[in-house]
Amino acid sequence: MLPKKQACTFSKQNPASKQSVGSASHSRRGRPAGHLSASRRTGAMDIEKVNSMDFGEFVDVFGNVVERCPLVAAAVWSRRPFSNAAELEHHFLAFIDALPQSGQEGILRCHPDLAGRELQRGTLTAESQREQSGAGLTNLGADERLRLAELNAQYRARFGFPFVLAARLSDRAAVPRELARRLRRPPALELRTALDEVKKICRLRLADLLGSNPAKL
Amino acid sequence: MLPKKQACTFSKQNPASKQSVGSASHSRRGRPAGHLSASRRTGAMDIEKVNSMDFGEFVDVFGNVVERCPLVAAAVWSRRPFSNAAELEHHFLAFIDALPQSGQEGILRCHPDLAGRELQRGTLTAESQREQSGAGLTNLGADERLRLAELNAQYRARFGFPFVLAARLSDRAAVPRELARRLRRPPALELRTALDEVKKICRLRLADLLGSNPAKL
Repeated sequence: MLPKKQACTFSKQNPASKQSVGSASHSRRGRPAGHLSASRRTGAMDIEKVNSMDFGEFVDVFGNVVERCPLVAAAVWSRRPFSNAAELEHHFLAFIDALPQSGQEGILRCHPDLAGRELQRGTLTAESQREQSGAGLTNLGADERLRLAELNAQYRARFGFPFVLAARLSDRAAVPRELARRLRRPPALELRTALDEVKKICRLRLADLLGSNPAKL
Repeated sequence: MLPKKQACTFSKQNPASKQSVGSASHSRRGRPAGHLSASRRTGAMDIEKVNSMDFGEFVDVFGNVVERCPLVAAAVWSRRPFSNAAELEHHFLAFIDALPQSGQEGILRCHPDLAGRELQRGTLTAESQREQSGAGLTNLGADERLRLAELNAQYRARFGFPFVLAARLSDRAAVPRELARRLRRPPALELRTALDEVKKICRLRLADLLGSNPAKL
């Protein structure tokens, strides 16, 4: 299942745009709002454009490719120039793999619950909001929400990180089923699975930004 | 020079409080605003309190100990329980040391310029705002600001990350002098120095939160 192409202007909910990360005096600070949105809408942001970005601009654009971890994009900038979208993606995934286990668990802990309180309160990042909405998680009945909240709590208590799933590849019926299934797995195995989901989310968000198609997920 | 004890309620400028990081359905979401501020003001947050935090609460409180890198606190939570403040500090610093070089550079890139555009625009994190203000960087004349902006730009161009300095251990006269001095150093050496400054900032912020005195900086 390929993601829909979406206009990826960062809304006010996005931490990487709401509060710019990186050095403060870049020329990008003075750019008009949404200066990249046209190229994003047409999927025309090519790799030369990416390679021409200073680190501040790069983190503004890619800072939420890994949810609420702009550090990852800020690290990946060290690897430029990138030959193509696949190489850029490779460096994001390789950085996650190179982290010590505590860092990998840390990445998971920066994710919100699915259909959790942040969705109710409207404090999700723009990307999470779009993904959870697309999976139908914004339209749950009270019983479904309660059931998910209970499962999420059990999952956090068992593994020490929240349940992470690429919501765009799932739907409201599958999410609680998958959560209940993964809840029973051995912790070491579940950590790998959860990181695989982070990587799927990362690849889908990159594909949105670059107008490319992610390889098979 | 020891830091002044400060009330460390996170203001709206703090990304870790403005947009909660971690799972969404924690009981902490329902806590009254500032439920920790009294203990912070009196320096009474003891290590038992820290050890009792779930990961969401821990990241809310310690998420900006490393500027705009809540991932670091989210990773350090894996190391609990902590025997004392020194051990907690050790795990923050050890995580930074364990990162690949690109990740260490990434941490630096999540820092704002000193006296840069973010200060002018009021988009600094609460901690940065306080630190830069304490060093007198909010009261520079136009000439001083311009001089610093030029030096910051030269530094970024040379090293690929912004100039980072523990502003609370410096002042408005020393900052441009130190920037000009470090600008001439070999890149590998300068990376080590910049990370040492990140660690000083980290220790000072932790000391604020815990009401403890950092060891000699």
